[in-house]
Amino acid sequence: MAQIRFDVLTLFPEMFHGFLSTSIIRKAHEKGLIETNVTNFRQFATDKHQTVDDTPYGGGGGMVLKPQPLFDAVDHLLQDASERPPILLMSPQGAPFTQKKAEELAGHSHLMFLCGHYEGFDERIRQNLVTDEISVGDFVLTGGELPAMVIIDSVSRLIPGVLGNHDSAAMDSFSNGLLEYPHYTRPSEFRGMEVPEILLSGHHANMEKWRREQSLERTWTRRPDLLKSAPLTEEDRKFLRMLEQKKRSE
Amino acid sequence: MAQIRFDVLTLFPEMFHGFLSTSIIRKAHEKGLIETNVTNFRQFATDKHQTVDDTPYGGGGGMVLKPQPLFDAVDHLLQDASERPPILLMSPQGAPFTQKKAEELAGHSHLMFLCGHYEGFDERIRQNLVTDEISVGDFVLTGGELPAMVIIDSVSRLIPGVLGNHDSAAMDSFSNGLLEYPHYTRPSEFRGMEVPEILLSGHHANMEKWRREQSLERTWTRRPDLLKSAPLTEEDRKFLRMLEQKKRSE
Repeated sequence: MAQIRFDVLTLFPEMFHGFLSTSIIRKAHEKGLIETNVTNFRQFATDKHQTVDDTPYGGGGGMVLKPQPLFDAVDHLLQDASERPPILLMSPQGAPFTQKKAEELAGHSHLMFLCGHYEGFDERIRQNLVTDEISVGDFVLTGGELPAMVIIDSVSRLIPGVLGNHDSAAMDSFSNGLLEYPHYTRPSEFRGMEVPEILLSGHHANMEKWRREQSLERTWTRRPDLLKSAPLTEEDRKFLRMLEQKKRSE
Repeated sequence: MAQIRFDVLTLFPEMFHGFLSTSIIRKAHEKGLIETNVTNFRQFATDKHQTVDDTPYGGGGGMVLKPQPLFDAVDHLLQDASERPPILLMSPQGAPFTQKKAEELAGHSHLMFLCGHYEGFDERIRQNLVTDEISVGDFVLTGGELPAMVIIDSVSRLIPGVLGNHDSAAMDSFSNGLLEYPHYTRPSEFRGMEVPEILLSGHHANMEKWRREQSLERTWTRRPDLLKSAPLTEEDRKFLRMLEQKKRSE
């Protein structure tokens, strides 16, 4: 049995085809670790034109997704469920999605995603159907489909067995709370650009020290906010104080 | 001629199929407003196994994308270009993607996206090929493909003619710097849940006041950081002070 099931409600199920049939997500399906079910909620509309939206009360532009098709779609999908899963609404108004939220969601065995497309959602959907409103960032997208894929991807890779040992290394390097140090591979010279000598030295302790300092310096330069919560050693702090002093004396 | 061309370099071009053939993006293609070209950079590998990655200098887990296939792919794609476009690397280490960045990118006629998949990029790619490193958020994804789609979607909808007047309303409501007010549509009662009476009153000025206050209160509750930069009237500030007082007296 799959360790997690993702139910997606969308008006554009075909948008998920490439994503679901590629790479890690495809392999996780094939291994039976995840199950994904994409449903077009238009099929739950009850009128002959299969209308899912209507004009807003109070006027103004845009259309609003009606409550009935989404409530009925959720009822239908959960008719055999023993408990109600988190029902996530993809919305720029939601709480920002973070790696911590991904870890929390990965602890569930079932997640539902409601994706709107241009339209707003009738407020009764937000208040009485949805359990979490999630935003993947402060930018405007055409719909909730890409954000749902982002969340499914980041949650899936936390499910045991989805990533091989090989792939999970990348995750560990993020989870130390700092930006990654620079990576280099062969050749040692390409179009006149050289690999730092220290990485060719074979001196393990020096290379580790260099990597840690590169990681600290890059975080200090680009994302100083991360340093507040990253676990730092006394030596790390000394190096960061040195960077501060160097900057002040410039 | 298209107003903007997106070149995507990826090892998983099929991941883009659903996205490119759906909704707004498909229509923008059909109208000739945008052009998208997805290239598998594996075809630029020069050895018979078409290797694009190698182990890192200095050891450690994970694989690193070699410089040669990506440098050669970019050279090939730009051989007839009159100027070098922004070359964007999708990376959790990049500057956070925002609506402002989307607007800036929409001013270009050509954008290139480099998408890695699990692997790191050889630092020489970051330093000498890439012009912008962009992150869509503090979470770990399997690759840069979904972030590239997020950026292509948000930039495309800013290209004149891509959105109809109907759709662009939603964007305007975000661009006032506040979270949106609640939307409601028919029926006025659904499963016992009612639409606020004020929206059924037909009193235009009262409805507008209610909406503004809902928008302010929601922003104040969920995303107070946005209030610092949102354009506010004296009446807005008065309402926010009232909310503060109410909270303090609770």
